[in-house]
Amino acid sequence: MTTIDTTNELNQVPSTHVSWKPGTLIYPVPAALVTCGSETDGYNIITISWIGTICTNPPMCYISVRPERHSYQMIKRNKEFTINLTNENMALATDWCGVRSGKDHQKFKEMNLTPVMGEKVKVPYIKESPLCIECKVTQIIPLGSHDMFIAEVVNIMADSQYIDPKTDEFKLSDAKLIAYSHGHYYKLGEEIGKFGWSVQKKKS
Amino acid sequence: MTTIDTTNELNQVPSTHVSWKPGTLIYPVPAALVTCGSETDGYNIITISWIGTICTNPPMCYISVRPERHSYQMIKRNKEFTINLTNENMALATDWCGVRSGKDHQKFKEMNLTPVMGEKVKVPYIKESPLCIECKVTQIIPLGSHDMFIAEVVNIMADSQYIDPKTDEFKLSDAKLIAYSHGHYYKLGEEIGKFGWSVQKKKS
Repeated sequence: MTTIDTTNELNQVPSTHVSWKPGTLIYPVPAALVTCGSETDGYNIITISWIGTICTNPPMCYISVRPERHSYQMIKRNKEFTINLTNENMALATDWCGVRSGKDHQKFKEMNLTPVMGEKVKVPYIKESPLCIECKVTQIIPLGSHDMFIAEVVNIMADSQYIDPKTDEFKLSDAKLIAYSHGHYYKLGEEIGKFGWSVQKKKS
Repeated sequence: MTTIDTTNELNQVPSTHVSWKPGTLIYPVPAALVTCGSETDGYNIITISWIGTICTNPPMCYISVRPERHSYQMIKRNKEFTINLTNENMALATDWCGVRSGKDHQKFKEMNLTPVMGEKVKVPYIKESPLCIECKVTQIIPLGSHDMFIAEVVNIMADSQYIDPKTDEFKLSDAKLIAYSHGHYYKLGEEIGKFGWSVQKKKS
């Protein structure tokens, strides 16, 4: 095993960094519209940035939700939700659904978002979203301000306008996804490279 | 409780979406350089995109790692790691550290990254990173291809060049973070708005 003895170096480097209060600063992250609810409960939309993939195979993900949020009980009860990725056209609705509560608002209607019933979950996805990820909850872990819902991805509803008819590839890069970073929403900008570009041989 | 009866609408909408194989498609996400190891093990860097915040208070996060990765045993044994956010200058190192293994490479040295010993963990952070998040593992959840390491954020090392001397605010927006989306690295682009902009009254 090759290991790096950096102990000498470690002591010689003058630090440019200062200690900062522990906080939630992992960025950029998605600002996804998570849909939930049931015919009995009604349906709701909640904007979530504490969200991500936790396992590749089987495909699994998590969302973290405060127990006081309107969507929390719906997800806990029905054990299903859909993650709707958000693009530039959906930016205003994304922010609004994060600020307003389903207790007081009919979010689909007020934001002109179109609910379409999912295929593998009894939750509508958002037609305006380029990619909608249907999930079933397998575990709930209380952590403090938030509970983490761990879920399996059971199906994906992909907007066919982004599917290349020749290769059958989903071109997520054409979907103009937005990112959230420390209180601000951003467009994705210039592409820097593809996964693996740092070790690719140049074509001669 | 106001609920939305969308059941009628749901049946009338012609779908533009098609069913797609379940997969890991929550994007954009960070491509963080996670540092780990110990004086005994040596230190390593692993690029991780299955990463995120899971609780605001106390601040907690997760990283998911394949058991066959060189860093996996180090993190499991030492129960500490540091999440180093990556910016445009670090893009090549970010890709390279995700493709190469610490079994065969001295990643700090080969990528000209400077290790500086952390304050609350015995793991070096990367001096070139704008923001380094020191974490202690509290739980490991095996899920399949990946194990999820759940951790508490115990300290943050922030590059002082991004701290506004007047307000003492950390200006993450100046750090030129990069995002990863479905096999591609991107710069963050144009800002769309601040959290809450959709409900802000215009100043008259």
